[in-house]
Amino acid sequence: MKIAALIFDKITVLDIVGPTELLSWVPGAEIIWVGKEIGPIRAAPTGLSLNVERTIDQVSSADVLIIPGGPGVRLLLKDEKVLDWVRKIHATTKWTTSVCTGSLLLGAAGLLNGLEATTHWNSTPALQSFGAKYREKRVIPQGKIVTSAGVSSGIDMALWLVGKIAGDDAAREAQLCIEYDPQPPYDAGAPSKVTPLVLEKARANVKDVVSRTLAGA
Amino acid sequence: MKIAALIFDKITVLDIVGPTELLSWVPGAEIIWVGKEIGPIRAAPTGLSLNVERTIDQVSSADVLIIPGGPGVRLLLKDEKVLDWVRKIHATTKWTTSVCTGSLLLGAAGLLNGLEATTHWNSTPALQSFGAKYREKRVIPQGKIVTSAGVSSGIDMALWLVGKIAGDDAAREAQLCIEYDPQPPYDAGAPSKVTPLVLEKARANVKDVVSRTLAGA
Repeated sequence: MKIAALIFDKITVLDIVGPTELLSWVPGAEIIWVGKEIGPIRAAPTGLSLNVERTIDQVSSADVLIIPGGPGVRLLLKDEKVLDWVRKIHATTKWTTSVCTGSLLLGAAGLLNGLEATTHWNSTPALQSFGAKYREKRVIPQGKIVTSAGVSSGIDMALWLVGKIAGDDAAREAQLCIEYDPQPPYDAGAPSKVTPLVLEKARANVKDVVSRTLAGA
Repeated sequence: MKIAALIFDKITVLDIVGPTELLSWVPGAEIIWVGKEIGPIRAAPTGLSLNVERTIDQVSSADVLIIPGGPGVRLLLKDEKVLDWVRKIHATTKWTTSVCTGSLLLGAAGLLNGLEATTHWNSTPALQSFGAKYREKRVIPQGKIVTSAGVSSGIDMALWLVGKIAGDDAAREAQLCIEYDPQPPYDAGAPSKVTPLVLEKARANVKDVVSRTLAGA
């Protein structure tokens, strides 16, 4: 099972590390880390440096495609080479998935028109601009296309996907391997669960990180 | 706030990406990715290539130290240079933390003797061999030392830590920014929650990945 994990400069790295950590426990899984050009890229906001070791020119098919989000997505939404690649790979996949603002890239590639989809809570107008019907859900399957909400939601999406690919017990084994038994000490993971002040500050923080990250581009 | 995030070859990358993704939302946080030598390393089992850009010789203090786990931890448990560095940084921190088998490195450095601590469910005898009192909990604070259980538990640990460092509302803002509103479609994240067969297969899978990873060393 060939899993193409797209990476790019200014990626939110948890978007792609969460799902791949689970999928790597599926027997026979091979994760292909693929990007536009060979070389180092930098995650935002954590600043972690990653290496692209395979280019999109070198990868022409995949069983699973995972597109993560992050500030850098905005630099790809009009990149025809990347959009063409997404469409080409999608034509070969069993599953085409996104995490966080990765769904905007699926949208820009024309793959979400008329479909229900989700994204990070701060990017819903952008998602709708591509003709998708935004729904406030954590994971949304529409045929073979599966979008998930912000950042950490990719873990739930991938766990669901492992079950579809390899069965319920394989999903349970993968969940146990990464000890995914969440016990968050706060219950503030969705806009509906926080006070207006927390929501306003979080929105300002996201805006600030995105603008500072892109200004450094 | 200087956060030293230790990275090394054959790291389980979610161990360190989960916590840093949350901590990066604390105002003034600076994450320093530090390793033994400058250059690329590779995560296991996902195969992601990361770059060490600062060496342990270049980092002599930190407000927060995070030590992740992974198969590669076993290659560091007798590495006196790394153990000395852990002890030296610990002497300067406000918080010294570990995720997954990262606690074995704290143990090997002599920092867990007599303390309650946790680790990945498959590594409890190793933890106890360093004089720690293993407890089956997700996050265990003991003074300024905080250990957490396997892989994904680092997200819960870091959320707790953001609350301690910056207050409850800052923690809620960070949780919302990464949309950490877990909704796992299975409930199999701890040994007590699975059938004996799932536990046995997960244990075999972990053993297989660790041995294949270390054989490739």
